[in-house]
Amino acid sequence: MSDATVAPLLDHGCLIVHGPDQPGLVATISDWISRIDGNIVSLDQYSDNPAGGAFFQRVVFHKSDLSAALPDLREQLVDLLEPYTMQWQLTDRSIPKRMAILASTADHCLLELLWRHRRGELPVTIPMVIANHTNTEEDVRSFGVPFFHVPSQGADKSAAEAAILELLIGNVDFVVLARYMQILTDGFLDKLGVPVINIHHSFLPAFIGAAPYKRAKERGVKLIGATSHYVTADLDEGPIIEQDVARVDHRMSAADLQARGAYVERAVLSRAVQWHAEDRVIRHGNQTIVF
Amino acid sequence: MSDATVAPLLDHGCLIVHGPDQPGLVATISDWISRIDGNIVSLDQYSDNPAGGAFFQRVVFHKSDLSAALPDLREQLVDLLEPYTMQWQLTDRSIPKRMAILASTADHCLLELLWRHRRGELPVTIPMVIANHTNTEEDVRSFGVPFFHVPSQGADKSAAEAAILELLIGNVDFVVLARYMQILTDGFLDKLGVPVINIHHSFLPAFIGAAPYKRAKERGVKLIGATSHYVTADLDEGPIIEQDVARVDHRMSAADLQARGAYVERAVLSRAVQWHAEDRVIRHGNQTIVF
Amino acid sequence: MSDATVAPLLDHGCLIVHGPDQPGLVATISDWISRIDGNIVSLDQYSDNPAGGAFFQRVVFHKSDLSAALPDLREQLVDLLEPYTMQWQLTDRSIPKRMAILASTADHCLLELLWRHRRGELPVTIPMVIANHTNTEEDVRSFGVPFFHVPSQGADKSAAEAAILELLIGNVDFVVLARYMQILTDGFLDKLGVPVINIHHSFLPAFIGAAPYKRAKERGVKLIGATSHYVTADLDEGPIIEQDVARVDHRMSAADLQARGAYVERAVLSRAVQWHAEDRVIRHGNQTIVF
Amino acid sequence: MSDATVAPLLDHGCLIVHGPDQPGLVATISDWISRIDGNIVSLDQYSDNPAGGAFFQRVVFHKSDLSAALPDLREQLVDLLEPYTMQWQLTDRSIPKRMAILASTADHCLLELLWRHRRGELPVTIPMVIANHTNTEEDVRSFGVPFFHVPSQGADKSAAEAAILELLIGNVDFVVLARYMQILTDGFLDKLGVPVINIHHSFLPAFIGAAPYKRAKERGVKLIGATSHYVTADLDEGPIIEQDVARVDHRMSAADLQARGAYVERAVLSRAVQWHAEDRVIRHGNQTIVF
Repeated sequence: MSDATVAPLLDHGCLIVHGPDQPGLVATISDWISRIDGNIVSLDQYSDNPAGGAFFQRVVFHKSDLSAALPDLREQLVDLLEPYTMQWQLTDRSIPKRMAILASTADHCLLELLWRHRRGELPVTIPMVIANHTNTEEDVRSFGVPFFHVPSQGADKSAAEAAILELLIGNVDFVVLARYMQILTDGFLDKLGVPVINIHHSFLPAFIGAAPYKRAKERGVKLIGATSHYVTADLDEGPIIEQDVARVDHRMSAADLQARGAYVERAVLSRAVQWHAEDRVIRHGNQTIVF
Repeated sequence: MSDATVAPLLDHGCLIVHGPDQPGLVATISDWISRIDGNIVSLDQYSDNPAGGAFFQRVVFHKSDLSAALPDLREQLVDLLEPYTMQWQLTDRSIPKRMAILASTADHCLLELLWRHRRGELPVTIPMVIANHTNTEEDVRSFGVPFFHVPSQGADKSAAEAAILELLIGNVDFVVLARYMQILTDGFLDKLGVPVINIHHSFLPAFIGAAPYKRAKERGVKLIGATSHYVTADLDEGPIIEQDVARVDHRMSAADLQARGAYVERAVLSRAVQWHAEDRVIRHGNQTIVF
Repeated sequence: MSDATVAPLLDHGCLIVHGPDQPGLVATISDWISRIDGNIVSLDQYSDNPAGGAFFQRVVFHKSDLSAALPDLREQLVDLLEPYTMQWQLTDRSIPKRMAILASTADHCLLELLWRHRRGELPVTIPMVIANHTNTEEDVRSFGVPFFHVPSQGADKSAAEAAILELLIGNVDFVVLARYMQILTDGFLDKLGVPVINIHHSFLPAFIGAAPYKRAKERGVKLIGATSHYVTADLDEGPIIEQDVARVDHRMSAADLQARGAYVERAVLSRAVQWHAEDRVIRHGNQTIVF
Repeated sequence: MSDATVAPLLDHGCLIVHGPDQPGLVATISDWISRIDGNIVSLDQYSDNPAGGAFFQRVVFHKSDLSAALPDLREQLVDLLEPYTMQWQLTDRSIPKRMAILASTADHCLLELLWRHRRGELPVTIPMVIANHTNTEEDVRSFGVPFFHVPSQGADKSAAEAAILELLIGNVDFVVLARYMQILTDGFLDKLGVPVINIHHSFLPAFIGAAPYKRAKERGVKLIGATSHYVTADLDEGPIIEQDVARVDHRMSAADLQARGAYVERAVLSRAVQWHAEDRVIRHGNQTIVF
């Protein structure tokens, strides 16, 4: 797990394999990479229980003319891994993932992502930002990123969600909720069909529900934090990608805590997005393996 | 708020004052210190709302022959602060507080406190350790600290609590629960009449109830933490003194998380105990002001 | 020392006093605030040695119609503090300090400051950004901040420094070097006459001279950091205001370390600037007291 | 890199391979593990430059009756890896490394190691502690660990070093300098022939030479740290294994900084020792790869 900034890499493939652990898996995979004249650049492997547990591997390899070879390689992998009943995914690291950002009025997470992208630190393209408010429109466009306004429409979210889906489907590989304050319906997630990453504040102990910073202040917490996770049907309960905290003290008001929390949120979300974009995160039940 | 190690200091008084904020309070107090030929060493003051909020002050001052003068100084403070209806406390920093430790089988927090005390880093005396098990007896006595065994006696805690109270009352200024795994009754706290400091594990988000490390593992948390707080009738819900976290990853088992958590617990509890012993912590509702 | 975001505050004065410690100082000052019908909001005091050491105090107080009263209050303070030979400064917290930023090509510290300012988190105005390159011009102006280009002119810095001084003198209260890669001459600092805050990378151990990240990589450091300090005639050796670190590992290249370092730099510089703008930092020899 | 506490594991082998990167290395090794009926538990691989760089791999595998098979497995590895001119090492994770500790008067790092060992968190045996003072003798023996006193003898270290070598050679697999305040000669390191791990304080910026905490105080540093590294002929310049920092402030004296630093030192040294004991650290020039 690294904060390294990895630009899209020509002729580098990334193979993710996971499923039930079985003897010989690593040999099978690395032998295959050797046979196709690939050279392994990095390999991370983890088994949560060598006797009948789950197996996870991420391997990045260099191969000349990778993009031309990809269709054939994928066919080979079907044959190779079928006997093992593993899930796998082979990506070309020179092709950045397409990331959409959904936002509301708060701009701190949104601008952080746009900014890191402009600095060449996020290996993604950003085909669009969708917001249910317009206050960030000018900023977003100043980064050369298309901005679409889809206003919220009260309790019945169906029209707004349909409009968003029409913009997203087929155009993006994952979606980031950068303090997007609308709850997505299960139906939306099903239809969208790509991973969604969220960020929310976190405390020890938790303060669930309304006005969490006010309640954290009343309890006198000494740390405030943020959690980035994949969105599932269980709101805020999906697999955690990254977390961090910052120290606070009694002199800070609830508003101060919230401002301080914003800096933790933008850092945590950025790391989670980068790791996802680099195919470093494997979901397993309600956990993540972050290589 | 400092980690500084403050040995008991000859001729140094520590005055804590808190209550409703009123104009002139700081002047009244500092003027008094000046009149008694005291010299202010450090002063921390905080007001949570200058218009009708609460006022908190901690001032450490040097005064020759402090111990002889204390009774008279306290009488003067009664007169001085009566018009302001403030709570106050004047202590002689050369007199260490008497700290009892309650423990069960886990030794990490217990030994950390004994060890820091031996290194001269905790300005306390330790008149006794009380445990409901005997496994730590030899270790405790090797530090020259008396050890008393009061076994737990099932659902009816009255006999055990009575035995503990008989040992504690009159002999200690505060009590530390160093992973003491028995829940204290409200009656016990009332009769004890001195502050009780506890330590417990903490997560973002919280996992309340049984097997928290197992559930943290299942959720794939990336940080584990600990919280030290004053014990109130609301179990684990008293005012927080200190918190901290450590980073964990998917390769660690639930047992690993627990072992890692132990190091956070002992560090957090030690800081909380030191700050309490140095009169740096003022309780205010369910918060603490830590100067 | 707080990360709290303090907006400019109406009718709040901030008095900084420091010099040789003497009995009665706190009483004298708080008594005076009481006499002028001020109400103390926060007070921090520190004495590095009560017997003949140095005394430092920062007190924020509320007083109606402060701005009208300021000239008179300052005259009173001259009389009040003259017998004590103390240095002091009384500022009106409703008047933000004027901050100029000097930059080169790197934009991370520059944009972070502009951004935090726009979010209302830095109690300053920014009358100008001066850079010796033009790549940030458009970004700066998009924040509504004037941009001036003063190119470097080789070994003889006199013309460039004269041009910068002409822009700055009389117009700013302090200057921030946001990765400004030109060394300022002593003459420049003398003529400028206002504090200058710098940020630079830091390591344990230090790597002084050229290519520090490359050498840190070669040594295999596990932490990289940043230090913000006041600029003195001794380059990079002035009083430290704030420091922080981030964890790195062997998988990161020297370029990755530098990118990671950029995030530490912008956070550390922002905190240093905020604390300076809030008059929380008192210089004392080659140290700072940060209240 | 994990803080996980790994007890000695029955029938688990750990193979470390490093040297010039070449295609097919991972396949060769994992294929071999498969052929010997081993099952890979964890595998970390890193290549610092896939085109002609250095290759590093750590693989832990389960194999029935490992200890009986070891001699044969090592012979197979000679044949297998000879064509690749790699360095390698195969260890039986059920056999803890033998660790000697050298200490002087300071006990914080020494006791931390003894304590973690007693808690079952360090997979080592401790055949001896050697100190040039006797103050820790009783404590060490209370842990059931042999204590040997080898006093320092001034400028000529030859007699003392000879006495220490006689105790160590053949009896230990690595040596930890737990604040051992004698400089070891190059000749000592050559004759010893096993790795030596040291711990020392660290600052940003560095303060090299005498009284570092005093000078750190004078400079007003905001962080103090510690670095654990392998000892080489260049004093304090060997490959870094682990580093960490703690936050300090102006209220802390030089003695306070030193006391705070002691807690960073013991944590950093413990992690370095654990990772070394678990064969997670590979030396490469003046760097370490920590898996």
